[in-house]
Amino acid sequence: MPNPPIDTGSAAVSTNGKRRVEQIPGRQLADNYRFPNSRKVYLNGEIHPDIRVPMREIALSPTRIGNKTVENTPFRVYDTSGIYTDPSVVVDIHEGIPRLREKWILNRPNAKYEEVFASYKPIIGHSDLNLPLPPRHQVLKGSGDVTQLQLARAGVITPEMEYIAIRESMGRVKEASHHRGHSFGAAIPDQITPEFVRSEIERGRAIIPNNINHPESEPMIIGRNFLVKINANIGNSAVTSSIEEEVDKMTWATLWGADTIMDLSTGKNIHETREWILRNCPVPLGTVPIYQALEKVEGKAEELTWEIYRDTLIEQAEQGVDYFTVHAGVLLRYVPMTAQRMTGIVSRGGSIMAKWCLSHHKESFLYTHFHEICEIMAAYDVAFSLGDGLRPGSIADANDEAQFAELETQGELTKIAWSHGCQVMNEGPGHVPMHLIKENMEKQLEWCGEAPFYTLGPLTTDIAPGYDHITSAIGAAMIGWYGTAMLCYVTPKEHLGLPNKQDVKDGVVAYKIAAHAADLAKGHPGAQAWDDALSKARFEFRWEDQFNLALDPQTALAYHDETLPQDGAKVAHFCSMCGPKFCSMKISQDIRDYAANQEGLKQMAQEFKLAGGEIYVPASESAEVVK
Amino acid sequence: MPNPPIDTGSAAVSTNGKRRVEQIPGRQLADNYRFPNSRKVYLNGEIHPDIRVPMREIALSPTRIGNKTVENTPFRVYDTSGIYTDPSVVVDIHEGIPRLREKWILNRPNAKYEEVFASYKPIIGHSDLNLPLPPRHQVLKGSGDVTQLQLARAGVITPEMEYIAIRESMGRVKEASHHRGHSFGAAIPDQITPEFVRSEIERGRAIIPNNINHPESEPMIIGRNFLVKINANIGNSAVTSSIEEEVDKMTWATLWGADTIMDLSTGKNIHETREWILRNCPVPLGTVPIYQALEKVEGKAEELTWEIYRDTLIEQAEQGVDYFTVHAGVLLRYVPMTAQRMTGIVSRGGSIMAKWCLSHHKESFLYTHFHEICEIMAAYDVAFSLGDGLRPGSIADANDEAQFAELETQGELTKIAWSHGCQVMNEGPGHVPMHLIKENMEKQLEWCGEAPFYTLGPLTTDIAPGYDHITSAIGAAMIGWYGTAMLCYVTPKEHLGLPNKQDVKDGVVAYKIAAHAADLAKGHPGAQAWDDALSKARFEFRWEDQFNLALDPQTALAYHDETLPQDGAKVAHFCSMCGPKFCSMKISQDIRDYAANQEGLKQMAQEFKLAGGEIYVPASESAEVVK
Repeated sequence: MPNPPIDTGSAAVSTNGKRRVEQIPGRQLADNYRFPNSRKVYLNGEIHPDIRVPMREIALSPTRIGNKTVENTPFRVYDTSGIYTDPSVVVDIHEGIPRLREKWILNRPNAKYEEVFASYKPIIGHSDLNLPLPPRHQVLKGSGDVTQLQLARAGVITPEMEYIAIRESMGRVKEASHHRGHSFGAAIPDQITPEFVRSEIERGRAIIPNNINHPESEPMIIGRNFLVKINANIGNSAVTSSIEEEVDKMTWATLWGADTIMDLSTGKNIHETREWILRNCPVPLGTVPIYQALEKVEGKAEELTWEIYRDTLIEQAEQGVDYFTVHAGVLLRYVPMTAQRMTGIVSRGGSIMAKWCLSHHKESFLYTHFHEICEIMAAYDVAFSLGDGLRPGSIADANDEAQFAELETQGELTKIAWSHGCQVMNEGPGHVPMHLIKENMEKQLEWCGEAPFYTLGPLTTDIAPGYDHITSAIGAAMIGWYGTAMLCYVTPKEHLGLPNKQDVKDGVVAYKIAAHAADLAKGHPGAQAWDDALSKARFEFRWEDQFNLALDPQTALAYHDETLPQDGAKVAHFCSMCGPKFCSMKISQDIRDYAANQEGLKQMAQEFKLAGGEIYVPASESAEVVK
Repeated sequence: MPNPPIDTGSAAVSTNGKRRVEQIPGRQLADNYRFPNSRKVYLNGEIHPDIRVPMREIALSPTRIGNKTVENTPFRVYDTSGIYTDPSVVVDIHEGIPRLREKWILNRPNAKYEEVFASYKPIIGHSDLNLPLPPRHQVLKGSGDVTQLQLARAGVITPEMEYIAIRESMGRVKEASHHRGHSFGAAIPDQITPEFVRSEIERGRAIIPNNINHPESEPMIIGRNFLVKINANIGNSAVTSSIEEEVDKMTWATLWGADTIMDLSTGKNIHETREWILRNCPVPLGTVPIYQALEKVEGKAEELTWEIYRDTLIEQAEQGVDYFTVHAGVLLRYVPMTAQRMTGIVSRGGSIMAKWCLSHHKESFLYTHFHEICEIMAAYDVAFSLGDGLRPGSIADANDEAQFAELETQGELTKIAWSHGCQVMNEGPGHVPMHLIKENMEKQLEWCGEAPFYTLGPLTTDIAPGYDHITSAIGAAMIGWYGTAMLCYVTPKEHLGLPNKQDVKDGVVAYKIAAHAADLAKGHPGAQAWDDALSKARFEFRWEDQFNLALDPQTALAYHDETLPQDGAKVAHFCSMCGPKFCSMKISQDIRDYAANQEGLKQMAQEFKLAGGEIYVPASESAEVVK
């Protein structure tokens, strides 16, 4: 690393090919899915030369200093959008996207596979939309060294691991001029190597959620010593939404930067919806299997059984779900601890299990059958996301007895899962005021052996429904800095309704901000280069570059054009905040120029006076630009 | 305290009376300016019985538990909107709002006043809009104990101080059930008393920015041991905007919660615009006088003189500006420290002074004439906001030599200003990654003797133009928690263009979130009650109360109605996230009910089974609500 790019397209226009996008006319989609001045590039591996790691490369205009022109190196950013943004590929979602990892999976040195028949049978009355299934592929069930954890323990650097090493830093190393970061005892290296990835997986400090039946997914890693990742939830509910919308929400969320997707569907056609999403999903997909199990007993939690749950796990593992939220830490004895809370149990999985435990006055079957769950998940390399069913649902309930009791049990279960070779992360809150956030991270690190933490926000206040992407981005940025590996996004509709596409985008962008702010603060080696590239463009009045380097170029451009829509304003050496007559950035450039002069400050002052007239764009010259 | 409310109106509809609101038809304005289910109430003082402290009281619906109905006490929130939301007052902005503090000012025990003629004369060519001035009032210039700091030192509890004590906590005290907060060594009491306000002013740890010529303003306090305040910037620039817009932006920003307004106008009619704003402004108004001084020399920084600046200070002090940003810490020797920065000097005031210093190779006249500046500001009780002209404009430049050199000088100047009886706060950055934020606060507290800190964000990353209200709300919440007293808002248009009304609202709401999150974390005695009231409404499915208690009720309601527009859904015991079949909140209520049962868990389990059918709203019953 760095390797030369191969297989570049011209400009990264996304294809809408045969994608089903009923809501959106083709042309509009293409525009919405296009990043300006960007192209898709791929880097090859060295250990595994056939791997092609995608990234988005943003072309930049040159810097002009006086008569000199200095080229700016194109800037590469992490790209979660999959082949949808590769103009050389036409996607037909009815066929599914290419099965990138299929060979890697089959070539694992010590793995054996049974090819099994999918266990799923449509349930009458649960497919009332008569939704068909996509073409079926052979389902694999593994034994031997199947999971990335087992492989890492065997000393194998898998293609997934090398892919991730390239993807995490895109060849960047930490520059001396960058802030060092403060990582609270994490072990972030100055350069991400494949061996480092392997060692982090072996220690259980990171996971690569990649079910052997989801070869379409591009490898990514979740761990405190890597880039902070974000998850976007999608899913129809009993009240609204449709499958087409959910598939489209997935590609939309990954376009803007979602690293994983959770499908939280609860209505009809859960299996079919998920199948369509998985066959077209370039990122890991997570689910909460208890939701589907509950559908199978028509919503009656007390009628749930281990067998129904087990069969649901297998059904979803066979489909290719990459991680399961399992609320096995909600124990019978913890349930009464929630009775005096302001907002009780707000996790759906948590309340389902609490109800089951109380109804039967028995310990949770997720806990009593945990070893069997581990065996199933190891056979497909489904990662655990140990749920926090008793997370606080309000500021008042933060960090209480119920919450921390469950976290301790999550720690106990983490070690059991590791003993089965399973990859594990732990879910965390929720609603937590800022001064109580750090305790969550510290206890999780201690009790769960540094397994990756995956939190929902947390929201730092309850008073702003409609803006909970912001109330929670504050908490998410902080806990990401403290060591949380993945942040589950919150949209502006949280607590109020189902997110639409704009809400999904708003949630993803707010969380990309939180994650990147955390990467900067903890000192990820590749993080600050992005801020520097954008700030340099800003200082040099390279307006187009400033928009193109933004997390959301379309919005940045649109906001600029609201005040100064003329094309001329995009090369102007001023902006609408100060106007053409006075510009602090321009003065700074002058100071820099004068400081370069070696004859001392007095000389500088003299020259400055003589050259004074040049500092401002005279009003008459600027008029043609701003009128 | 608490005192019974007096003078309540019926429902708090705002009046658009004779207000000039050209852009907005009357009816629409009334809707936009109305908070649902709210009324304006006033609390009287005890030391000063004639003071009437406004707040907004939100009526709540009762809690229904089975057949029982329990009333919920109306909830009071801090109200910055002034008399515009008092239905008993008709405002004519051509006359100006009532002069609330006029008598209090004249009755100060040891103050003497000259009645002076306003020094302002319209400058030909600077009033090309031919904007008239509002009716002029007598201008005061004081001597003796004029400033709140001088009065506090004399042991006087001014009406302003008692007003603030009532306003800060609205009679609330810290409840035992509330999180204690972590305040980093601040001295936040469990109850805010008038004497506490006085003692904080005396120590210089808080300020009450209230020019004796701005009696229209409602007293408020800025200090780390009080609620975190937010400032909204308005102002026309050379490129766009109009005076009517700016006056309307002021009332709009204060409606949503801006505690102070800064008028940063730079174009024509600066004086006239400011006069219209001041005569109608219920909150303190701040300015950066160097901007207007620069206009007087037609934008040529090197032609600025002490005399031009001094006359501008007096002109603005006579008008009633409540605090001045003075960049007196930008010293000649600091300027070269910025030459190698990524983004040089980004503060306009800072770059004006840097240019002046370099042009003349002289120390800044703001620094050399600082004692005279103090004398002027003391005579009108204009507070200092010591500017940070060398604040970082990018992540790369955060916490560098130039920035901290200036901060040390701000500390030196703070003590000089105190010696003149002036109230002082200090401005802070800017762009700072999360891990470097705390150092800013710590150095400011140490070097500036705990004078209030007033920061712009800080933005925690540079990569999201278009979303800088979010990148900066993260930093603002954190630095507010660490001890910053006031947060200058950033709108989504930052770095891109001039904010419109929606941007102003988005900026204010994001900063109200940051400020409240900080209040919770530092343990302000009145803060958590708001979160608790909203979360209780949420848990009890009092949907309307949930909207009405939100920072932005209109948006919360609109988002809810996008998914479930039917009136029935607002009394439904479910929401669109889970749908009617399954609801975790409902299950939690059941757990609570059962836990109240003394016969133990086994009994609970038994009853739960028997009552199981009640947990869900049967699909047929719910159909009429959701269809």
